[in-house]
Amino acid sequence: NPLNPSLDSWFTSMLQSTSSIRKPKVPKGVRDFTPHQMAIREQAFGRITSVFKRHGGVTIDTPVFELKEILTGKYGEDSKLIYDLADQGGEILALRYDLTVPFARYLAVHGEGNIKRYHIAKVYRRDNPQIARGRFREFYQCDFDIAGEYPLMVPDAEVLKILTEILDDLDLGTYEVKLNHRVLLDAMLELCGVPPAKFRPICSAIDKLDKEEWETVKIEMVQEKGLAEEAADKIGEYVSMKNQPKVLFEQLKETGLYLESKGGRAALDDLEKLFQYLEWFGVIDKISFDLSLARGLDYYTGVIYEAVFTDNNVVGSVAAGGRYDKLVGMFSNKGDIPAVGVSIGIERIFAIMERKMAEDASAVVRDTETEVYVASIGDELLQEKMEICAELWSAKIKTEFPYKKRTLAKLFPEVLGARIPFMVVFGSSELENDTVNLKIMSDRQEVTVKRSEMVETLLPYIEEYRQGE
Amino acid sequence: NPLNPSLDSWFTSMLQSTSSIRKPKVPKGVRDFTPHQMAIREQAFGRITSVFKRHGGVTIDTPVFELKEILTGKYGEDSKLIYDLADQGGEILALRYDLTVPFARYLAVHGEGNIKRYHIAKVYRRDNPQIARGRFREFYQCDFDIAGEYPLMVPDAEVLKILTEILDDLDLGTYEVKLNHRVLLDAMLELCGVPPAKFRPICSAIDKLDKEEWETVKIEMVQEKGLAEEAADKIGEYVSMKNQPKVLFEQLKETGLYLESKGGRAALDDLEKLFQYLEWFGVIDKISFDLSLARGLDYYTGVIYEAVFTDNNVVGSVAAGGRYDKLVGMFSNKGDIPAVGVSIGIERIFAIMERKMAEDASAVVRDTETEVYVASIGDELLQEKMEICAELWSAKIKTEFPYKKRTLAKLFPEVLGARIPFMVVFGSSELENDTVNLKIMSDRQEVTVKRSEMVETLLPYIEEYRQGE
Repeated sequence: NPLNPSLDSWFTSMLQSTSSIRKPKVPKGVRDFTPHQMAIREQAFGRITSVFKRHGGVTIDTPVFELKEILTGKYGEDSKLIYDLADQGGEILALRYDLTVPFARYLAVHGEGNIKRYHIAKVYRRDNPQIARGRFREFYQCDFDIAGEYPLMVPDAEVLKILTEILDDLDLGTYEVKLNHRVLLDAMLELCGVPPAKFRPICSAIDKLDKEEWETVKIEMVQEKGLAEEAADKIGEYVSMKNQPKVLFEQLKETGLYLESKGGRAALDDLEKLFQYLEWFGVIDKISFDLSLARGLDYYTGVIYEAVFTDNNVVGSVAAGGRYDKLVGMFSNKGDIPAVGVSIGIERIFAIMERKMAEDASAVVRDTETEVYVASIGDELLQEKMEICAELWSAKIKTEFPYKKRTLAKLFPEVLGARIPFMVVFGSSELENDTVNLKIMSDRQEVTVKRSEMVETLLPYIEEYRQGE
Repeated sequence: NPLNPSLDSWFTSMLQSTSSIRKPKVPKGVRDFTPHQMAIREQAFGRITSVFKRHGGVTIDTPVFELKEILTGKYGEDSKLIYDLADQGGEILALRYDLTVPFARYLAVHGEGNIKRYHIAKVYRRDNPQIARGRFREFYQCDFDIAGEYPLMVPDAEVLKILTEILDDLDLGTYEVKLNHRVLLDAMLELCGVPPAKFRPICSAIDKLDKEEWETVKIEMVQEKGLAEEAADKIGEYVSMKNQPKVLFEQLKETGLYLESKGGRAALDDLEKLFQYLEWFGVIDKISFDLSLARGLDYYTGVIYEAVFTDNNVVGSVAAGGRYDKLVGMFSNKGDIPAVGVSIGIERIFAIMERKMAEDASAVVRDTETEVYVASIGDELLQEKMEICAELWSAKIKTEFPYKKRTLAKLFPEVLGARIPFMVVFGSSELENDTVNLKIMSDRQEVTVKRSEMVETLLPYIEEYRQGE
């Protein structure tokens, strides 16, 4: 049996097994997804991938496990969270921890220069699961990256355009995209008198400003990290600056960051170009130029950004990314491949969608996509039901019929509840007249049509329904 | 950083790492998928899932790893092929080996009675990879199953209908679905004088008849498995019987299998019902009732089937399944849940599709779905390109523009080669007249339209193109 060669002896050995029935369960920190959850996920995936495809994106896939050495040394302290496979002879393997390292490894193996790729797949972390906070050991990541040599800021602008289109299409609330530049941040620290060795620790303090007051962060800088109070105060002035991109840009041109710092001026020149492109793409209004955005990741080399919902009821970032020009080169001896990308917080999006649907019945995604339910009145009339279904399936209409004999009175509310938009109903009198009744569920309308005209009568209704979905 | 909390220290530690650059590779027996391969896979998945959805199917997902004890004792000798996770403290885990055991475990955990579910996901086997024969350590399975208590043979008929719709929609060659019944097979063996203890070994010999001559199989039965020659000869007569379902059914009604065997008569009564339903569904012509079909799996309890291509250039089965009424109950203390299903040999289907596309350039799936390519004549005109793209993206039209400055002479053949169906082209003279040129690539036609009428002129073309895809 080429499809399932190893199941042959399964049943035998199960029957031979004397073990009693255990209560089955899933491992800690991971989940099954029910049909309803999967329907929500598919809707989110569909909306997101259609934006990626709208921009010429392609997708790749990589194995769920990598050679352990590919992952080794990439995640610092968090390496302890990597799931190792048992040593059963042969190679030493581990489950992927994110999609970024496999992407960098992919580019190095396949020698692909220029690619706009998205990858939606599960990653694995032996973290302490915090189910209530939506933190699991197996979860989806959803990454879009543009790798390759391109004119300055053009791909960066398109990634930001894609991010806004995704958040618009998902329609989960008002948002803004905070944006900063890594080189500008470094220039600012230098200008404020932060010694280079303290850049990273001070950055990670700044990164906390979305959750903590300046006073608290300042105390961390001065007391924990040993920064001079004067330097901290200067930083405090800069990181309070946040405005519409072009407005803040003009303000900064008057400051030392442009006038005195080479790096600062270069970064601001970059940003001027980017803001111009974002204006041409029509999305500049969704961007907030924010000097307090630091982003913890050390590998960013240019523009960085983070999308946050500005509604009160959703906190934290829902997507984040930036430019990382030196990362891919670490896997390759062919030199650097510059790249810019964004990671969509897909698990957070699922959680928001599930909560919205729990609150608003009309927003609920259907579990099935069934368009027509075929039912008989009185007798079961299985033959006619099966023939009608076959005809509808041939016309690519999504159709179901009851396996068990049910009265129409019981079926009707179920079909309504499942939000199936149409029914084909008939009894012996319709059979005699060679007709069927089409029920349009939304307005309880019923039309009697010739059996031979059933499909052609239904199709325009179905088309209209599909366009509304 | 809630999206990627652990990458913070990555870059630092990578830079600190003194290891030189290793040549990166994937583990033995697993693969990356390129954008082109993914496009083919998505096309196959799309066609297959649209049939599942057409029949009211829902999908579920389960974790990639299960508690080891769930898998233990289910696969007999082949248990050695299970990938174990390392013992890093906590539970003992293993990667899923197929989708059937996780489905049975899912039904037991969630207490779902009636479900029509499909599941397309990767499974893992530490097998000796035979790349040339398309056998990998990580590969997709694609299962559809109907679980629950339903009238006899109704779900069985729908599963077979679904299988034929999938093979019709994939359009990979002529095929037939061989069909038999497990109880009929046992009755046949009993009638031929096979001792019950020899049922399984004799079945597995019969299973080889699709590859070997009867004489070879007979020798195995008699010499290796110690069956009386007379019994083997009787089996030989039966297993040569293969015909259109209703024809063979009428023939068998004249034999001892119907007249003398209680099991045989019961199974044939089942099959009579099934054939009736398959006739009503309009697919009886695709079925071949074949007494030589044995299917190795021990867990089948009713009808069994296997789809094979009847073209010369494709061998082996492309889908297989049957009824298994006792399997799910093994995980549950709530009693049996009857089930019937089919597993589509999706990796074999990918291989056939890839080969077809390599042979026939016109059948090649496009890597991107880009519909419009925006290019300028002469000057780069980046602003206008970006503005036009933004307008097309807003209209949900899949659009790209060149990141780098390229002449139209160089772009044109690339756009044709990528089979992008439309171009928007303009230069400074079009800008002055407030027009753009729409190129319809299929017939090299070019229309000049007002800039403000670009989208409305394009949309009907795009709609027509989408309907043809």
